[in-house]
Order: sequence, then structure tokens, then C-alpha cells
Amino acid sequence: MEIQAATQQKSLLATLDPGRRTRLRRLLFEFGPGNGTLLFLPIDQGIEHGPRDFFSNPAAKDPEYQFHLAAEAGYSAIACQIGLATKYYPDYAGQVPLLLKLNGRTEIPPSDDALSTMNATVADAVRLGADAVGYTLYVGSPRQGEDLIQLRGIRQDCDRFGMPLVVWAYPRGSAIDRKGGRDSFYAIDYAARMAMEMGADVVKLNMPKLNPDTDKDAPAPYDEMSEIGTAEAIRQVVESAGRSLVVLSGGAKTDDEKLLENTRLIMSAGGQGVIYGRNIWQRPHAEAIEIVEQIKEIMLSSVTRVP
Amino acid sequence: MEIQAATQQKSLLATLDPGRRTRLRRLLFEFGPGNGTLLFLPIDQGIEHGPRDFFSNPAAKDPEYQFHLAAEAGYSAIACQIGLATKYYPDYAGQVPLLLKLNGRTEIPPSDDALSTMNATVADAVRLGADAVGYTLYVGSPRQGEDLIQLRGIRQDCDRFGMPLVVWAYPRGSAIDRKGGRDSFYAIDYAARMAMEMGADVVKLNMPKLNPDTDKDAPAPYDEMSEIGTAEAIRQVVESAGRSLVVLSGGAKTDDEKLLENTRLIMSAGGQGVIYGRNIWQRPHAEAIEIVEQIKEIMLSSVTRVP
Amino acid sequence: MEIQAATQQKSLLATLDPGRRTRLRRLLFEFGPGNGTLLFLPIDQGIEHGPRDFFSNPAAKDPEYQFHLAAEAGYSAIACQIGLATKYYPDYAGQVPLLLKLNGRTEIPPSDDALSTMNATVADAVRLGADAVGYTLYVGSPRQGEDLIQLRGIRQDCDRFGMPLVVWAYPRGSAIDRKGGRDSFYAIDYAARMAMEMGADVVKLNMPKLNPDTDKDAPAPYDEMSEIGTAEAIRQVVESAGRSLVVLSGGAKTDDEKLLENTRLIMSAGGQGVIYGRNIWQRPHAEAIEIVEQIKEIMLSSVTRVP
Amino acid sequence: MEIQAATQQKSLLATLDPGRRTRLRRLLFEFGPGNGTLLFLPIDQGIEHGPRDFFSNPAAKDPEYQFHLAAEAGYSAIACQIGLATKYYPDYAGQVPLLLKLNGRTEIPPSDDALSTMNATVADAVRLGADAVGYTLYVGSPRQGEDLIQLRGIRQDCDRFGMPLVVWAYPRGSAIDRKGGRDSFYAIDYAARMAMEMGADVVKLNMPKLNPDTDKDAPAPYDEMSEIGTAEAIRQVVESAGRSLVVLSGGAKTDDEKLLENTRLIMSAGGQGVIYGRNIWQRPHAEAIEIVEQIKEIMLSSVTRVP
Amino acid sequence: MEIQAATQQKSLLATLDPGRRTRLRRLLFEFGPGNGTLLFLPIDQGIEHGPRDFFSNPAAKDPEYQFHLAAEAGYSAIACQIGLATKYYPDYAGQVPLLLKLNGRTEIPPSDDALSTMNATVADAVRLGADAVGYTLYVGSPRQGEDLIQLRGIRQDCDRFGMPLVVWAYPRGSAIDRKGGRDSFYAIDYAARMAMEMGADVVKLNMPKLNPDTDKDAPAPYDEMSEIGTAEAIRQVVESAGRSLVVLSGGAKTDDEKLLENTRLIMSAGGQGVIYGRNIWQRPHAEAIEIVEQIKEIMLSSVTRVP
Repeated sequence: MEIQAATQQKSLLATLDPGRRTRLRRLLFEFGPGNGTLLFLPIDQGIEHGPRDFFSNPAAKDPEYQFHLAAEAGYSAIACQIGLATKYYPDYAGQVPLLLKLNGRTEIPPSDDALSTMNATVADAVRLGADAVGYTLYVGSPRQGEDLIQLRGIRQDCDRFGMPLVVWAYPRGSAIDRKGGRDSFYAIDYAARMAMEMGADVVKLNMPKLNPDTDKDAPAPYDEMSEIGTAEAIRQVVESAGRSLVVLSGGAKTDDEKLLENTRLIMSAGGQGVIYGRNIWQRPHAEAIEIVEQIKEIMLSSVTRVP
Repeated sequence: MEIQAATQQKSLLATLDPGRRTRLRRLLFEFGPGNGTLLFLPIDQGIEHGPRDFFSNPAAKDPEYQFHLAAEAGYSAIACQIGLATKYYPDYAGQVPLLLKLNGRTEIPPSDDALSTMNATVADAVRLGADAVGYTLYVGSPRQGEDLIQLRGIRQDCDRFGMPLVVWAYPRGSAIDRKGGRDSFYAIDYAARMAMEMGADVVKLNMPKLNPDTDKDAPAPYDEMSEIGTAEAIRQVVESAGRSLVVLSGGAKTDDEKLLENTRLIMSAGGQGVIYGRNIWQRPHAEAIEIVEQIKEIMLSSVTRVP
Repeated sequence: MEIQAATQQKSLLATLDPGRRTRLRRLLFEFGPGNGTLLFLPIDQGIEHGPRDFFSNPAAKDPEYQFHLAAEAGYSAIACQIGLATKYYPDYAGQVPLLLKLNGRTEIPPSDDALSTMNATVADAVRLGADAVGYTLYVGSPRQGEDLIQLRGIRQDCDRFGMPLVVWAYPRGSAIDRKGGRDSFYAIDYAARMAMEMGADVVKLNMPKLNPDTDKDAPAPYDEMSEIGTAEAIRQVVESAGRSLVVLSGGAKTDDEKLLENTRLIMSAGGQGVIYGRNIWQRPHAEAIEIVEQIKEIMLSSVTRVP
Repeated sequence: MEIQAATQQKSLLATLDPGRRTRLRRLLFEFGPGNGTLLFLPIDQGIEHGPRDFFSNPAAKDPEYQFHLAAEAGYSAIACQIGLATKYYPDYAGQVPLLLKLNGRTEIPPSDDALSTMNATVADAVRLGADAVGYTLYVGSPRQGEDLIQLRGIRQDCDRFGMPLVVWAYPRGSAIDRKGGRDSFYAIDYAARMAMEMGADVVKLNMPKLNPDTDKDAPAPYDEMSEIGTAEAIRQVVESAGRSLVVLSGGAKTDDEKLLENTRLIMSAGGQGVIYGRNIWQRPHAEAIEIVEQIKEIMLSSVTRVP
Repeated sequence: MEIQAATQQKSLLATLDPGRRTRLRRLLFEFGPGNGTLLFLPIDQGIEHGPRDFFSNPAAKDPEYQFHLAAEAGYSAIACQIGLATKYYPDYAGQVPLLLKLNGRTEIPPSDDALSTMNATVADAVRLGADAVGYTLYVGSPRQGEDLIQLRGIRQDCDRFGMPLVVWAYPRGSAIDRKGGRDSFYAIDYAARMAMEMGADVVKLNMPKLNPDTDKDAPAPYDEMSEIGTAEAIRQVVESAGRSLVVLSGGAKTDDEKLLENTRLIMSAGGQGVIYGRNIWQRPHAEAIEIVEQIKEIMLSSVTRVP
């Protein structure tokens, strides 16, 4: 019996049930860069932040903008909630895969005891022809227990329907704040493992941030690892996710050089792909198409995987 | 693939399932003004406020008053709760469409952690021959999570039965009070988008109110948008609701000029219709019939839409 | 289309489903006074107060006492909980209708956040041959939301089985205390409307009490209505219940003149009947039979209704 | 129609469904004293107190001890939880009836808001061949509402399966402490009635204790009844339970004279039987057999009932 | 009828249903030491502690490491959560039995009111070919009630599917801290009995620790038993678990002599086996294989049991 490296992407497809294999193969090899990497366009900010993210590019307020962009620029999938999936996705059905986000919350109530409740089901995703479902798990939140129970239900439905499960694994709550914060290497590393242990096929993580001032509050050995550098931290995080594929995100808008640099960092550290939202659609259509091209170029050059 | 403007009403009917299309067409084109706009008569104040709203026009205490009025004046639908729908609607079945409100609460307990629990189901609505169901969502309330779960259940039943879903989207709770208040442009704009994202076919909103003193507490860019004017705020709100139709309400009784002026404002800003309760039935029958005529005139002159 | 007065009892039977019509007709015309009025004997004090109410007439501790009395004196129905209905009602089955009370609570925990949980179901009532079910709704309680959800379930089962629903509508909680108190005209009037809106066929209310000192804390216009008199307050409350029939209660034991006077007041104000417990069974059998005769006389002389 | 005394045991069997009649008859007439009385051996202390009760008689730590004793000494039933019923009862199936206790809790968390959650179901009892199920109800606890809902579920399953229901009715919580305490006549009397009202076939109560110092805090007329004596208090409590049979318990270990005296008191006051645990099995086998013989003698001499 | 000693392991297999007998026999006699003892390898630390336990032996971060080790070294079973079972176990299916852990939690939120929620079901275990399921019960936690309800559901599914149930019985919460602490003899002894009473087939316990300073806060007679010695405490604990088999754990990494000494202690006190995690896999593969050999030797020499 030969030991297989956990980060080999082929090992994942190899152990998947037929439904998951069919759908995930579509995301990895038929759409997006097409070389076994993942390029997701998220448009769930309307729920999470309200319309405030759309003012810098008013055209983006109309969800048509993002759906059109995702199809034209050749994304692996567009990630959105049930309302958009019902009213906007049908026009693009089959032209870009749908990643239906199943839970969400507004930013209005404070996130101290964050729980992102479910507003759609895996059955909704199947009905709409989605190729994956997304779930936000707040690792370490005081309501973590409820969160895991919700996730279990989704995971079981995914098993039943052969649906790939993408987990947005976000550390949250005062307990994690006391141990270095939600973006610390400790927090992101824990979240990566947790998502894998809960059965995620793909894990969406934020970039780990090293900071000696706050990392010292993390449990050993994280309290003394601030010097390892971001590239190594990403590599470790990808490793912690085991056979779950890892995509990293960009957060608020940064300049293009930084964005492309991050992409290179992620891909060379073993990440499976990227998920950038505001960094893409907070610019006019033509510019958006252009930056996506540059990102895809990096993704295509970094690695080639076979189904 | 051509990009479609989100506020074009025809785009909505175009993507609807047959059940929703049948029923919503009835509201938009067979009853009410009949030109693709919506004129709703709400009589749920007996739950939300108790009988106190009826003393200025004692005849209105008898629900017969509103049902008779809605049928005679030619409304798109009458909106009420299960008790009235069961005991009063049958006499008017087929003469005015029924919009069954599924949740409600009394004003007696404070609304700090408001949640409007369900007292009827979509199946009740189907059984009673209703053409739409209504749900009150308290956006931003501390109990928002429970609210969204309730709404999900209704939305799924609406999908199952082809029933149009009208969401009363009301910002509530201390968190929204700290960010400009429940009637602020920020709050109403967020509520509009949220309802659309959750799958509303029609969104019922309160009029956004601009106020530099409190708007400054809202997130950017809302904190510096007090100068845009009410007409523009309404236009933006309608846009945020995307392909969900927007109806605006009147609130407490105002003078007739203001009421008609508001109607003009709403219709010219792209709103789909109005929902006035106390402003209509807190007056004798003849006067009520008269003001409804004037409102319908404005609605008919403002826009003509085809099914 | 002719407008029908909401307080006409015939309008209710006219719109009822066959099951409700059959059963309610039994209560209104086959048992009790028989002229379309309702005379209920409640024996749920053993739960709500414990055995302490039975010491002034020890014979009344044995539930046989009340069942025998209800059958002999010719009541419209006896109202009790599942335990008595199971162990004592069978001997009287068919000799007096059963109104099965579905929820209850002991008085031991404070009633600040009162909720009366369910200890029986409508299916239990059907199985036991009951002709109606009873539910206590605490209007305005902090747990009002849970209460309404419970009530919805019962109302839906009543729709399914054709079972008349009697709602004990009791204002409760600190919020109502701050607005004039649980017995104020405002509170009782709200409770009457609320029960009707939730689908009650019969509403059980306490006598509204006018008190300038506390009524001033109620919302307008109730804060200035202390002078209307009890008769008018009852009339208004009956009106607020619309097509739901109203029965009023007696509360703790009073003298006979007061009891009969209250009965006259209730019947002449349009009430459908009375529900007296301790005022009846806290006296020896013969005396109980006698006072019931006097009450029935008043009920028979006050009004005659046809099925 | 003849009025039947509520404490006549035959009246109970007379109104029971066939399943309950079969099973309860087994407890009353085929096992135990056999004269229509009930002698229960409880071995649920391992959950409620942990193993600490077993040290004074180490042999009793092995559940075999109690099962063997119950069968050999001729008990009406042995009362235990699911674990013992599954692993130890099978060897004694048919040799002593099983009373499966369905809920329980450890004494580790404080009992301020006590609720004894369910760890087995009536279906488990049916599967194991039990002749009765037991449920602990904490009357007056802040979580009384949840308790009553749990109990309702069990009562309904008992109705479905014809399974006798034994309710351990224990007053608990700060509210009862403020009204005279959990062992007061008021508290026990309320608990007795409550269990009967909820559908108990048998009620297990603790001995009421009269104490002028604390009874004065109970509601009238209990506040002035300290002088009635224990025998009368027990008689009243038995009466409050109506057609539900009453068994009383012994609590912590007392001397043998007291134990036998209590037995006489209980039986002569109309109690149906006794349930002694530690008082029996905290002694060597031979001594246990002996004291049980003495108890049975009292039970047999006190009363003779026919099925 | 002959009395059987509760600690005889054969008595357990004797009373088991066919499914449990088949599967437990596999763990006891076909895999592991094979002499009726249990040797488990746990790899659930990734959830309970995050990846921090893997840094001392980076190879162990890849779950392949533990799966390979368990199969090669000949364990009775490997214990892990759903994610690993789904993505790593299939390669080793049939080569080492799977003990699927059904609940878990991260260590991020404080454990004051610990509850380990379910993230998999018994049906998942059946589907994956597992031979046992594991459940963590926090005895004495403020949320003990919810815990017991969860456990009941699992126990019932185990009865339905014939699946052996392993309960990790951990005392937790401030109440146990006030009575001597979570590792005290009192706490562990209570946990052992509790797991057995709830229907555990195997109980996983931590080593009881005697400490006069804190034991004095435990209830009698535990407050005066500090002198009995660890061997006797283990013996008592094993006895309290009755016919449930007991495995003890090692906790954080200790030196090898201590580990082997503990193993001898456990086996000679009547324990059924051991479950060591970090003590095994926090060392290179070859060293791990070696220490396992030594442990198995002790287990094989200590006792021989027949199926």
C-alpha cells in the first residue's frame, strides 16, 4: 500500500463518488482555466455587506453584470445566493457553472456570536442545475455547535446527491480574538483542518497573516512561528486541508500588482485556486475582463494537473 | 446574450414558473389598475396595532368594511392574516385577489429583538385560493437568523406551489439604530437587496428618509449621500431590488396632497405600486372610494407595462 | 353583495366547514341553554392553581363532582385537560359535550414570560369524542412568538379535523402591565381581535375593567376612554372579536347578585355566553344546580338565535 | 348514573384500554404482594447520584444484585434506566416485571432549573417487554414547560401502545422554595393533582412534610394547615391524585421501625403502594429479603382489592 | 439463576444482538491483540486541538500516516471523524476496522458549557463499513440534558443497526470542578456508571487521579478515599461500568516507561484495553511500530478471553 501525498489533486477525484466526480471535473477541467485549478467569482456581497460595495462601479449593482462577466471571462463557477440563482442564473445556465451558496447573513447585527443560517438547500441546488454548493462555517464561534449541525445536514445531502461541498471556513468570535485573531496562521490553519475533517471537497480560506504582536497569544507552537513567512504559512495551510482543495480569497480591493502577486503566491504554495470578488467587479467591464486574463495566465503557467 | 435592465417588469414574468406567472399576472393585469402596477389594501393592523386604528372610523372595525372596499374599488389584492381570510374572504372569493400574510406579531412586547412568527402556511394560502403570500422580514434584527430560516421554508413552499412571495422588508434592531436608523436610505437599500437575494417576487418597503444628522452613522458611502433627494433614493432602492417588484407604503395617516404626491414620486422612480392602509380606510366609504380613484389615476398615467 | 354584521351568530355557522358546523351546533343548540348561547363549566383549576380551590367545597376535589354537575345541569360543554378527559369523561360521554383544553401550566413559576405549553393535541380530542378544543394564548407575553406558533399548529389541525377552536385570550407580561394592565379595556380589546385574527371560533375573555389611573398609560384612544362604562366596553370587545363568538368569565368567587348581574351585562352587550368555574362548583351540589338554573334563565330570556 | 369514589382502585382498571389493563393487572395482581398493591424496587440511583450509594453495600454496585433481589423477593416491578434494562434485565425477563424509567439526570449540575431529559422511549420499553414506563416531572421548575411537552409525547405513545405511565412527580425550583419548599403539603398535593391531570396511571410522590415555619409561605389554605398531621396529609394527597394510583417513597436510609411505620401510614391513608430503594438494597441480601417480607406483610394485611 | 460477575467480558458478547456481536467480535478477536482486548488509535485531535499536535512529527499531519500505521501495526480499530473516514479510510477498508466518531468540537470556545455536537450519524457509519461508533458525553456539563438527548438518538440507531457504541465519558463543567475536578475518582467513577446506564458497549475514560486537596470537595464517601491508590481506583471504575467494556487513555505525551506502566495497571485492574493517540503518532513511523509492539505484548500477557 503506497502512501499518497495529501496535496495531490488527482487523489481527490479518485476517491469521489460519481456525482461529485462529474460535477467537480466540470469546475476543474471544463470551465475556468481548465488545468485543474479553480477560479470562482463571488457575488454574495449584496447579502453580506448590502449594496454599499456597488457604488464605486454602479453597473455592478445589477447582478446581470457579474453573471455576464463570469460567463464571458470563463470562470470555473459563479458563487451566489438563492435569489440571484433563481432570477438571474437561468439566462446563463450551462454557460458558466453555478456554485450555490446555501447560507448567509447581513453585517448589521454584530458578529460576536456569528452563525450564518441556511436560506437554501442542496435540493435547491440540484433543481437549479448547480455544480457545487457553498457553506460558511464560523470556526470557533460561540455558536459553533449549531453551525456544525447545519453543516452536517448539508454534507449528508451532498453525499446523497453527489454534490461537491465548498466550505468557507472563517475563524470567528471572541475566543479566537484572544488567541491571535481571525486572520492568524493558527486560526486559518485550524479552519483548514476543520473544514477537511467535516467533509469539505473544497475549502475557501482567507490569507493567513503573520504578526508577532498577536501571534504570541496563540497556542504553541504557533506563538513562535511568526518568522516563517507568508509563502510557508500558505503551504502549511494547504497541507492542513489534506485532500480538500484550497482556494484563497482577496478581501477588500487592493492594487493589481498585489493581486497578481498573491495569485502567484497561492498557486506556488499548492493552492488549487482563487476567489476574488470586489477586486474584479469593482471596475468597468473591459478592465475586469483584462485582469481576469492576467490571473488566468498565472494559474495556467503555475501548474498542470490531469483529471 | 443581451443584458436586460433589472427594473423592466416584463423580465420578471418572463423567468417565472407557470404558477407564479398565472397568479402574479392576475394581480398585475386582471385586477387593480390593470397596467402592470400593484395596488394593495392591507388590513393586518388589527394584529400589529390592535383595534386602536379603528376608532377614527368605527365602521372599519368590522373587517367587512375593508373586504367590501377592496372589491368595489378594484384593488390588485387585499392583504390580511389567516383569521380574516377564513371568516371574511370567502364572501369575496374571486372578486378581489387574496394576499395571505403568513406571519405577524402584536406591538405589545418591545421590538428590540423583533421576529414575526408564522401563523399560517403557504398550504393555507393555496387552500384559500390566495394569489400571493406575504412575509415580514426584520432585516438586521438580533433574531435575523431565525427569520431567514422561516423565510426559507416559505420560499421553498412557494417554489413548490408556484405561489408569488411578497416580502415586507423592515430594518429593525439596535444595530440598525446605531447605523442611521430603520428608515435611513442605507437601511432601506439593504433591505431591498436582501429581500431580492432571498427570493422575493415583490418587496414591500417603507419610504427612505434622508437625514444628515443620522445618516452620518451609516457605512460609506451612505454617510455622505444625504443630499441626493428622496426621488433619487427611491430610484436607487428600486434598483437594489433588482428583478423583484417594489411597492412602497404610506405609514400613518397624512393629508391627501402628500399621499398623491408620494404616489407620483414612487411611480416615477420606477416603483411597481403602492400599499396604503390607514390612509385609505380611516375615512368613510365614499371618501375612500374617491381617494382610491385618484391614486389609480396617477398609477395609470405614470406607466404602461405589458404582461 | 350585502354587508353582514360581524356579531350575528348565524354568520359564523354559515361560513363554517361541515365538521365545525356539526360540532358547534351541538354546543349552541343541542346542549346548554339551547338558544344559540354557550354555557361552559371549566375544571382546569387543578392544573392552573393546584388543589387549593377545592378546600371550600371538598366534594369538588373529586372530578366526578364537576362531570356529574355539568351533565345534570345541562351545560353546553365541560372544559378540562387530558387527564380528566381520559379518566372521568368516558362515564359521561354523549351526556355533556367535551371541550378539551390542550395547553396549561401550574401557577408555581412566575408568569412574567408566560407560555402555556401543549399537553394534548387535536387528535387526542378527536379520539376522545370532544366537540371543541381550547387553547390559552398569552397576548403580549415575551414568549408570544412561541405561543402563536403553537396556536398555528392547533388551528391547522382544527381545519383538518373540522374541530371548533376556543381561544382563552389572556393579556400577559410586563409590557402589558406598563400599558394599563392585563384587565384593561385596551388589553382585552387587543386580545379579542388577536384571537379572531388567529382563527378562533370562540374567544374566552376576562371582563374588561375601566380604571382612569392605569388606563392613562394605554395607547390612544384607550387612554381617554375610562368613562365609557363597563357595558360599552364589553360591547366593543365583542365587536372586536368579529365573527368569533365571545364568552366571558367570572374569575374568583363573588356573590350571587353580582354573578347574575354580570351575566345580564354580558348577554345584553352581545356576548355569546359565560364560563363560570369556582363561582359554580365552590358550593354544594344542590346550590350549584340552583344558581345554574338562574344563569340559564337570564341567557334564555336575553336573546334567541337560530342555527 | 352513580358517582364513583376516585380512590377506588377498581375504577381505574375499569376505564383502562386493553394494553394498560393487561400490563397494570400484572403489576397489581400477578407480581408483588398480589392484592392490588404495588411494591417497586428502584435502581436508578446510579444515574441520579452516581455510584456513591453503593459503597455501604459493595455488592449492590453490580446491578445483578438488585435484579436478582427483585425477582427473588417478589416485587411488582423493578424500575431502572435503559442501560441496565438492556444489559441486565434479559436474564430476568418474565421473572419480574420491568418498569423502564425514560428520563434521568446526574446530580452534578445544580437543580435550580431542573429538567430530566429523555434517554429512552416508550417504543424501547415495548421492545424490551416492559410492563410500565416511568417519567420524572419537575412540577414548578422554570423549565416546567419543556417538561410537560416531553411528558405529552410519552403519554401519547403510552396511549398508542397501551403502556401504563408512572409519573415521579417532584416539586422543584426556586418558586416552590419560596412557597414552603419541595416537600411541603402544598407542593406534594399540587404535584399529585398535576400528575393525574397529565394522564398518569400511577403517581410516585415523596412523603409530605408539615412544618409551620415554612408552610406559612404557601398559598391559602395550606398556610394554616400544619396541624392536620402526616396521616391526613397523605390521605389528602392520595385524594388529589384521583383515579391515578399513588406510591410513596422512602428517600435516604432510615431505621427499620420507621420504614415499617411509614408503610403502615401510607397503606392506611389509601396509598396504593411503596417504592423503597436504598432502604432495601443498602443491606446484605439476606437482610434485604427479610425486610421486604415484613413490608409485604403490612401491605397484604392493610387492604384487599380485586382486579 | 446464577449471578454473573459484571466484569466478565464474555457476559457482554453473550447478551448482544447479532449485529453488535458480529462487529464487536471483530474488534476483540479478529483485529488488534486478538485476545479479547481493545487497542484503539485515535486521530480526532485535528478537530479537538487543531493541527498543533502535528508539529512535533510533521509526517503525522497527513492522515495517511495514522491510517497506514493502524493497519500495519494491527490495531483493533482507528477512531476518526467523518472527513477522514470519507477521504482516507477507503484505501484501508477491511484492513483495519473503523470506529467512526460521531460528534466533536474545536477547543476554541471555552468548555464551560461544553457540548460536542453531532457531525455524522450511525447511518454514515453503516454506509462507510464502520464496526463501531464513538460519542463524547460531557457528564455534568450545564448542557448535559442536550447531550443525553443526542446520545439517546445514537443509542437507538445503534439498536436499529446492531452497531457497537463507544462512549467517551468526560466529566465537565463548573459543577464538577467544585466537587473535586474532572479527573477525580468521584468524577470518573460517576462517568463510568453513567455511560453504562445510557447503553454504552464500550466506555472510554481518562485515568482517575487521586488528590487529597481536591477530593475533599467530592461527595461522601469519595471525600475520604484518596488513600486507596490508583490501581484500586481503576478497578472500582471498571466495576462501575458494569458490563460495558472499559478502555483508558493516555492524554498528552509521556515517557515510554510511564506509558507501559499505565498499560499494565489498566489491564491488571480489569480494563479491556487502551486508546493512545499522541503518545503513539508523535514519533517517527518505525518508533511508533516499536512501542505498539511493546503495548500489545503487555495486553496479550495480561489476560486471555474467549469470544
